[in-house]
Amino acid sequence: MSEFHMTECIRKTKGRVPLSAGEIHALVRGVTDGAIPDYQTAAWLMAVCLNGLTDTETALLTAAMRDSGQVMSWDFLQGPVADKHSTGGVGDKTTLILAPIVAACGVFMPKMSGRGLGHTGGTIDKLESIPGLTTALQPEEFRALVKRVGCAVAMQSGNLAPADKKLYALRDVTETVNSIPLICASIMSKKLATGADHILLDVKVGSGAFMKQDEDAAELARLMREAAKADGRQCSAILTDMDRPLGRCIGNALEVQEAISVLRGDTDNTLGRLCIALAAELLRMAGKGSRDACTELAEQAVSSGAALRRFAQMIEGQHGDPRVTEDLSLLPKAKCSRVIRAESDGYISAMQSEEIGRACVLLGAGRMTKTDSIDPGAGVVLAAEYGDAVQKGDPLLTMYAAAESQLDEAEGRLRAAVTVSREKPREMPLIRRMLTD
Amino acid sequence: MSEFHMTECIRKTKGRVPLSAGEIHALVRGVTDGAIPDYQTAAWLMAVCLNGLTDTETALLTAAMRDSGQVMSWDFLQGPVADKHSTGGVGDKTTLILAPIVAACGVFMPKMSGRGLGHTGGTIDKLESIPGLTTALQPEEFRALVKRVGCAVAMQSGNLAPADKKLYALRDVTETVNSIPLICASIMSKKLATGADHILLDVKVGSGAFMKQDEDAAELARLMREAAKADGRQCSAILTDMDRPLGRCIGNALEVQEAISVLRGDTDNTLGRLCIALAAELLRMAGKGSRDACTELAEQAVSSGAALRRFAQMIEGQHGDPRVTEDLSLLPKAKCSRVIRAESDGYISAMQSEEIGRACVLLGAGRMTKTDSIDPGAGVVLAAEYGDAVQKGDPLLTMYAAAESQLDEAEGRLRAAVTVSREKPREMPLIRRMLTD
Repeated sequence: MSEFHMTECIRKTKGRVPLSAGEIHALVRGVTDGAIPDYQTAAWLMAVCLNGLTDTETALLTAAMRDSGQVMSWDFLQGPVADKHSTGGVGDKTTLILAPIVAACGVFMPKMSGRGLGHTGGTIDKLESIPGLTTALQPEEFRALVKRVGCAVAMQSGNLAPADKKLYALRDVTETVNSIPLICASIMSKKLATGADHILLDVKVGSGAFMKQDEDAAELARLMREAAKADGRQCSAILTDMDRPLGRCIGNALEVQEAISVLRGDTDNTLGRLCIALAAELLRMAGKGSRDACTELAEQAVSSGAALRRFAQMIEGQHGDPRVTEDLSLLPKAKCSRVIRAESDGYISAMQSEEIGRACVLLGAGRMTKTDSIDPGAGVVLAAEYGDAVQKGDPLLTMYAAAESQLDEAEGRLRAAVTVSREKPREMPLIRRMLTD
Repeated sequence: MSEFHMTECIRKTKGRVPLSAGEIHALVRGVTDGAIPDYQTAAWLMAVCLNGLTDTETALLTAAMRDSGQVMSWDFLQGPVADKHSTGGVGDKTTLILAPIVAACGVFMPKMSGRGLGHTGGTIDKLESIPGLTTALQPEEFRALVKRVGCAVAMQSGNLAPADKKLYALRDVTETVNSIPLICASIMSKKLATGADHILLDVKVGSGAFMKQDEDAAELARLMREAAKADGRQCSAILTDMDRPLGRCIGNALEVQEAISVLRGDTDNTLGRLCIALAAELLRMAGKGSRDACTELAEQAVSSGAALRRFAQMIEGQHGDPRVTEDLSLLPKAKCSRVIRAESDGYISAMQSEEIGRACVLLGAGRMTKTDSIDPGAGVVLAAEYGDAVQKGDPLLTMYAAAESQLDEAEGRLRAAVTVSREKPREMPLIRRMLTD
C-alpha cells in the first residue's frame, strides 16, 4: 500500500468517495496505535455522521476494528457457540435468563459484557449485585467455566477491539455517537472478536432506546447482519419495543430477582415470552431443529429446572453465592421504599422508559459518569404494565433507594413517566420485527 | 450566560440549529485560550463544512474572532484608511502597486500581510526580495511610517485575531479549509481587526484560485461584505479571473520588477488596468469623487511619478534599498534560465495558473511547508498572454532558478500548463463582476 494520509481519508468521506480496504485498515491501525491525532479522527467521524459510509465500507471498518485486538476462538469446545447482543434498554435482563436456557440445551454462550451508563443498565452491574460474584475472570477461568457449565459472563477485556474503545471515547465527546454505520462497527467488531458462530441481535426501538425510529433500527439491524455475514457468521436480528421498560423490575438486584423468577417458571409475561423467543431463535441457528421444536426445548429447559441449575452453577463458578437462586432474600435490598399510586381510574397508556431509567439513576441504581458507584438494591418495581386497567389509589410502582431524599428526588420524574388515561391504549407488540435467514 | 458546553454547539451545528451569539463568543474564547480540546473543535469545523452556518452566525463568528486579539485604531491619522484583500492567486502583485497609488491620492493604506504557501505567493515574500527590506515592523514604527508615507506593509502580528491562527492551523490538517463561512470569518476577522474603514475585496475565481466557481466566489464576496457592514465598515468586492496568472511575472523579485514597471507608467495591460480599477474603487469609497474622477486621480498618480516616489519612500522606511525603483538590476536574479518555445502556430488558449504556480514552487519561488526557504530570484516570465497569437519557435515563457536541475524538474509541468490551439479562444474579461454599494 502506498503511504497513508489521514487527510486523504477525511477528504474522501467528506466528498462521499468510498475509502479503500487499505485505507480503512490503515485508519483503524493509526487510531489504535495513536499515530493519527484525535482531531483528525474527530473530523472524519463527523464526516461519517453527516455523509454516512457505504455497506462495504461499514463491513471493512467492522473487520478492521475486530482485528485491532485479540480475536477469541472457541474451537476447543467442539460445539455450537452463540452470542446475543442488546443495543441497550431499561430493565433489559434477558442475558441472565437466556444464557442458562441456551446452555441447558447444549449451546455454549460465553458472554462478554459491559457496565451500564446513563439511563440504561449493564449486565455486569446486575450480576455483581449477587453477593461475592465477580465478572473480572481470567481468560483461562472464563474458558474453563464455559466448557464446564455452558455459559459465563465476563467483563469485556481491554484487548477486545481496542480500536472501538478509542473511537468510542472520542465519539462520546464529539457528538458523533449517533451514526448507524459507526454503531454497527462498534457493536459488531466486539461481537465478531468474541468468536461466536451464531449471533442474535436484539435491537431496541422506541423512546427509551438509542434508536427512536423503526426505520433506523431496521437499518442498523440490516448493516450489522451484513457485517456478520461478510465474516462468515450466522446472524439474526429482532426489533423489540423500548417505549416501555422490559419486564417489571428496573435496578440491579431487582432485575436479578425478576430473572430468577422467570427461570423458576414464571414465563407467562412479556419478559418471559421474549426470552423464550430469543432462546428459540439462537437454538434454531445452532441447528437444534425448527423454530417450534426449539421453542419447546427452551420451555422445557425452564420447566425442568435445568436452566435455573445452570444459572446457579454459573454464579458459583464466578465466586457468587448460588443460594440466591433459591432464596431471593440473600440479594441486597434498599433501606427505603415508597409506593406511587394512581390518582385516577383508567388504563396505563404510557410508561416512558427513558424517564424511568433516569429516575433510577437518581435512586442510585445507575451512573451518569463512569466513576460513579451504584447501589445494587436501588430501583423501581412496576405494579402494573402498559395497557393494564388501574383504579384510583392502586399502586403503580414502588421506588427503592438508600435514603428518603433520593425517593423525594425521583418521585416527580416517576409520576410524570406514567400516564393513566380514560381510553384503553392500542396494543403494542413487544417484538416489532424479526430478521432471519 | 449559562455554562458553556462545546458538545451542545457541535450538536446544534450538526443538526443545523443556529448557535446563539453567546455560544459563538464562548466557542471562540475557548478555542483561543485552549479550553476547548482540538478534537471537539475539529468535529465542529467538519459540521460547519458540511452543514454551513447562517449569515448571522457567520457575522457573529467573524466579530468574535476579530475580538479575540488586538483591534487596531487609525484615528490618529485623521484621514480615510483603506485596505484591500486578495483571496490569493498566481502572480498577484497588486498590493505593491495599489498601496502607493492610493497613498499618493491622500488615502492611508496600512497593510498587514502574510507569507505565501503552496502555489500562491505572498506579498511579504515579494517585498522581502528587495535588498534590506523588512516587514517585521514594530507597531510604533509601522504607525509612524503610515502617517509619514501613507502606506506600509507589515507582517501580520501574532496578536491579530489569534482565534483565526488556531482555527486555521486545525482546518489545515482536518480538510476543513474549504467552507465559505469559515473562509469569510478567517479573512474578515483579520481585516476588521486591522481597522480600515474602506475595504476592497479582490475575490479570485477560476482554476488557479481557491474558489473555482463564480457562484462560490460571489457567495464568499456577499458574506464578507455582510460581515463588514455588520461592523459598520464600507466594503466593495471585485471578482477577478484566475484561470490565468495575473500579469506576466510569477516569482518574488520578478513580481517586484513588474510592479515597478506599472508604477513607472506601463499601465496599458491587464495588470495595470486592474490596479487602476482597484485604486479607483478604493478612492471612490474613501470619498475622493465619482468612479470616473477617481480613475483619473489614480492614473495621474502613476503618470506624475507620485506613486513610484511613495513606493520608494515606503521601501526606504522599511529599511530596503529604494534605488530598486530606478535600477531593476539591484533586485536578486536567478543564476540559470531557459526559454520554452511554441511547438506549433496558433493562439494561447490556456495558461493554467495553478500548474504554473506549482512549477514555480519547483523552481524555488514558493514553499510547500511553512519552514521551506525560498529563492527570491526564481520564477517564470511569460512572453505571451492568454489569447495572443504565436508562431512555432516563438518564446512562450522563460524559467528562472538557481540550478539547471530545477529547470529540468519544472519544464514538463510548464509545457503542459500552456496550450496553443489553432482556434482563437473566446475573450475572458479579467474583471468578472463588481459588487459595490
